[in-house]
Amino acid sequence: MFENNGLEPIKKVSIIISKGSMEGVYPGLIMANGARMEGIEANLFFTFFGMEAIINKKMDHLKVATVGNPAMHMPTVLGALPGISALATHMMEKEMEKLDIPPVREFIEMIHDAGCYIYACKASVDMFHLKKEDFCKEVDDIITVGEFYETSAGANIIFT
Amino acid sequence: MFENNGLEPIKKVSIIISKGSMEGVYPGLIMANGARMEGIEANLFFTFFGMEAIINKKMDHLKVATVGNPAMHMPTVLGALPGISALATHMMEKEMEKLDIPPVREFIEMIHDAGCYIYACKASVDMFHLKKEDFCKEVDDIITVGEFYETSAGANIIFT
Amino acid sequence: MFENNGLEPIKKVSIIISKGSMEGVYPGLIMANGARMEGIEANLFFTFFGMEAIINKKMDHLKVATVGNPAMHMPTVLGALPGISALATHMMEKEMEKLDIPPVREFIEMIHDAGCYIYACKASVDMFHLKKEDFCKEVDDIITVGEFYETSAGANIIFT
Repeated sequence: MFENNGLEPIKKVSIIISKGSMEGVYPGLIMANGARMEGIEANLFFTFFGMEAIINKKMDHLKVATVGNPAMHMPTVLGALPGISALATHMMEKEMEKLDIPPVREFIEMIHDAGCYIYACKASVDMFHLKKEDFCKEVDDIITVGEFYETSAGANIIFT
Repeated sequence: MFENNGLEPIKKVSIIISKGSMEGVYPGLIMANGARMEGIEANLFFTFFGMEAIINKKMDHLKVATVGNPAMHMPTVLGALPGISALATHMMEKEMEKLDIPPVREFIEMIHDAGCYIYACKASVDMFHLKKEDFCKEVDDIITVGEFYETSAGANIIFT
Repeated sequence: MFENNGLEPIKKVSIIISKGSMEGVYPGLIMANGARMEGIEANLFFTFFGMEAIINKKMDHLKVATVGNPAMHMPTVLGALPGISALATHMMEKEMEKLDIPPVREFIEMIHDAGCYIYACKASVDMFHLKKEDFCKEVDDIITVGEFYETSAGANIIFT
């Protein structure tokens, strides 16, 4: 590892979650949780399809994308069958459970309890005709891109 | 929100756009525009398929990806039908119009007028056999990764 | 370009590679290589499907995603044919060869020789039941998210 003598430790991260698949949502959640566990300040900002992870009716039903991802090593024709994405999702959920990585709703609750602020993107909220009450209770506020930059003072911005 | 006392505000962002779908291009454009509106310096650097957003013949015809995105809540077999991506694209365009988010070409013109520098990635330009004249007039320069780092001095680098 | 007088040059980058397709892996590799060529410190951290790029049995067989990417300008039904992804991959490999961009294995060796540290994400390693010996020899360590933040002191974190 690089010697970090004299280098400033990461003090704060502002993580943007923009994709709605399971493999699109978890990296950002894991990074936010890891940050709080290290005493690093953390903001989570959900935008575009990433908002699925904080919408009450959808957050318990995220799926793994089985097409368009060659790393699944699955012929596209097979990946497109309705049951396959559900199966891959179920398998990933089981593996994550073994690692004590909780389901999305519980993970967001945990991350929020650990002091991470949770925001939805105003433009996306308007585009998808959503309201504050469509979101889980952990969402602290619906903010503009400008407000996102303000709340990111001193942070490393990470778009996932 | 976190108290930002003593934390340094975001002064500059260098945003990389690497994907060519509508939902791959807009987050970076919205973040660049939002930055300039807040008085934050901004660079946009287009690479790989993201270059579609600044290629004259392609920038008016970007599409929403309807397969490989479980958040579309659409059976893959349906999403694969030729007309469906066009339909989803049309719907997103209408919603964005209501929010005063302009089409790609107009948005790039607006962002550039607001003082954001626009660059294409030299390696990608060479890989796809493109020339300066294939790009819209707002492209300030074709630069290498090394030059990208130089022009990113003091910036938060955001890969979208 | 912006005048960089008084702005601090980029000194260090911590690049996360999270996707397993060729177009998901190369941008991060190119940015890490470009950083080292500029004398910028660089860490590469492979997580989720991005780990394919450092797994011995898989790193020589990455593919271009031909579905779910409207920028391929290919009807999804066509992109889903088994041979098409292989064809697109072959074409991209040939173009990259012309630009002296090496295949993944060779590129990682080169980047590592240039002084970039290479890490695999512990949670992902556990989730996919992998072991140290499944990875190419350039992998310096398997580290947690917390350790990733520590080794990123002073760095711009870039998630690709």
